[in-house]
Amino acid sequence: MSKNFKLAVVGGDGIGPEVTAEALKVLDAVSATQGITFDKTEFDLGAARWHKTGDTLPDEELEAIRGHDAILLGAIGDPTVPSGVLERGLLLKLRFTLDHYVNLRPSKIYPSVGSPLANPGEVDFVVVREGTEGPYVGNGGALRVGTPAEIATEVSVNTAYGVERVVRDAFARAQARPRRKLTLVHKNNVLVHAGHLWKRTVDAVATEFPEVAVDYLHVDAATIFLVTDPARFDVIVTDNLFGDILTDLAAAITGGIGLAASANINPDRSVPSMFEPVHGSAPDIAGQQKADPTAAILSAALLCEHLGLVGAARAIEAAVTADIEERTGAPRTTAEIGDAITKRAAG
Amino acid sequence: MSKNFKLAVVGGDGIGPEVTAEALKVLDAVSATQGITFDKTEFDLGAARWHKTGDTLPDEELEAIRGHDAILLGAIGDPTVPSGVLERGLLLKLRFTLDHYVNLRPSKIYPSVGSPLANPGEVDFVVVREGTEGPYVGNGGALRVGTPAEIATEVSVNTAYGVERVVRDAFARAQARPRRKLTLVHKNNVLVHAGHLWKRTVDAVATEFPEVAVDYLHVDAATIFLVTDPARFDVIVTDNLFGDILTDLAAAITGGIGLAASANINPDRSVPSMFEPVHGSAPDIAGQQKADPTAAILSAALLCEHLGLVGAARAIEAAVTADIEERTGAPRTTAEIGDAITKRAAG
Ligand SMILES: CC(C)[C@H](C(=O)O)[C@@H](O)C(=O)O
Ligand SMILES: CC(C)[C@H](C(=O)O)[C@@H](O)C(=O)O
Repeated sequence: MSKNFKLAVVGGDGIGPEVTAEALKVLDAVSATQGITFDKTEFDLGAARWHKTGDTLPDEELEAIRGHDAILLGAIGDPTVPSGVLERGLLLKLRFTLDHYVNLRPSKIYPSVGSPLANPGEVDFVVVREGTEGPYVGNGGALRVGTPAEIATEVSVNTAYGVERVVRDAFARAQARPRRKLTLVHKNNVLVHAGHLWKRTVDAVATEFPEVAVDYLHVDAATIFLVTDPARFDVIVTDNLFGDILTDLAAAITGGIGLAASANINPDRSVPSMFEPVHGSAPDIAGQQKADPTAAILSAALLCEHLGLVGAARAIEAAVTADIEERTGAPRTTAEIGDAITKRAAG
Repeated sequence: MSKNFKLAVVGGDGIGPEVTAEALKVLDAVSATQGITFDKTEFDLGAARWHKTGDTLPDEELEAIRGHDAILLGAIGDPTVPSGVLERGLLLKLRFTLDHYVNLRPSKIYPSVGSPLANPGEVDFVVVREGTEGPYVGNGGALRVGTPAEIATEVSVNTAYGVERVVRDAFARAQARPRRKLTLVHKNNVLVHAGHLWKRTVDAVATEFPEVAVDYLHVDAATIFLVTDPARFDVIVTDNLFGDILTDLAAAITGGIGLAASANINPDRSVPSMFEPVHGSAPDIAGQQKADPTAAILSAALLCEHLGLVGAARAIEAAVTADIEERTGAPRTTAEIGDAITKRAAG
């Protein structure tokens, strides 16, 4: 039995295309062994395209992408483009239009990879970041721009509909993990309206998951625990902005942004979910084969898992783990790392 | 020549009164040696008062506090009070009404104090957190609360007026420090309206401070550098919410929240500024003499500095540094630490 999946590929900016190329190598190698094929369509989106045509994500391309089973994305953003144009017009447009409300970001410490923490302990948690609401909605504006009377607002929008679905997803994930612990992170002592909606929702959904232990932390306190006791976390559920901040910090303490993968999931299988490294486009090292493609490769594993290709997902993860365990610190090119992992994944 | 200062004291909740008592001990000892006196008025505000009377900060008491030269605050917040009531009704009411727009939070690693980081390097920076705008303005609301159709918003308000004054203050501080470096932290690739106001303001004010090197980081990237290379920072200027998050993280990497002091400054001397530890009320250890009063004591040093009592400020800092250097790890009570620092400060 062979199965064919339609994969939309958006390499994007900076190191995006380089790391994506390696993730595709690994995907191809694994799919060959698993009787799967990926039909790839590349979409030329990002800074170069914007400079050429002014487009960020035209409707026809969005519709074309929608016809795929999944999206593999490299990285978006370039210093030659005004900040926000590509982020809002391309990356966030994909997340919002395709209603990727579960932004999943696992963090784990590989014993062989150094952590900047002296005693990190055994770290293995996942952040479930809400992906379609909060301060990311683009619901603000500015008046009298460039004058001393300028006023700029940003509105965080939070709905019971949006919060409940992601909270329920996080509880289900916590329930399926051995430790069964869920920590809500917010700032409900200051952002009382949004914060209380989140808190009440967690308290309500908790009654459906009596085996999951529930905890609450203010976002500032959560950053403290991430450096003093990261092993305490199992599943963290949080809003879009807090999730953005916590997952970069989580990546840093678990050996760096070169290893941090993410999934932007819409559990409705008729809509493609999107898989991307947590890291950005790193324009300073772009095109130099200096980027670590591991995060992109692990994102491809999350992609397989989401498509139900559990064998492929485990094969990629095992290949990455084996590669990481043998890292000596000697520098390798992006392609060398990709090749090494590909070889293991195919073997 | 003796000088008398009127000091408003708000011990507050949890460990607040305990740590404040030690800060006052030190202040009294130092002032005796410097020919200064502090006339203290205690204000009974916080959880107990709220339970008794329902008051958080009545107008007459706010006016009475306004008549003082400075405010020394312990900590606010208690689990028996709905989250936000005391924070918004007391702590933030003081910061906002007294227009404490410079929330100053120094971070430095004392060589004798452990950091959770394996190789922190020489860390000595200060966060200038905006204190009167951003998502803290309380400018949101909720509709259809408790129903599946609930919507909750939080509005971040940012003005050229508010941003420029704190940015100018931060540049002046950077200019006066040996490294002369200023890093703006925001999220201008997503929060484009507020973020661009901040960025344009920093770029404009930078022309007045040509000797200060300017840098920009997204808040998520800033958390990474705080754990991988905190020594790179000199002065960080940022908004109210990002400043809240970054300063807890900064405290964590520099040996913990027990040492982190803060000043809520209104540079207009006719209005009292407010000095408080960064830590919260820690109700779990309240009344047990387990809290470290060092952050409160260092906040008293910031208070002296603000009042122009530079000798007193240096004496307190020196006493704290000497105490910290001789810490053996053997537990001491709150009062024992306070007494030891008092003795050194008076000596
Ligand atoms: C590039 C940026 C818009 C994005 C975000 O803020 O979500 C990134 O930081 C991330 O975490 O995926
Ligand atoms: C208690 C809380 C309202 C406060 C804040 O968020 O500003 C605290 O976390 C701080 O940093 O001073």
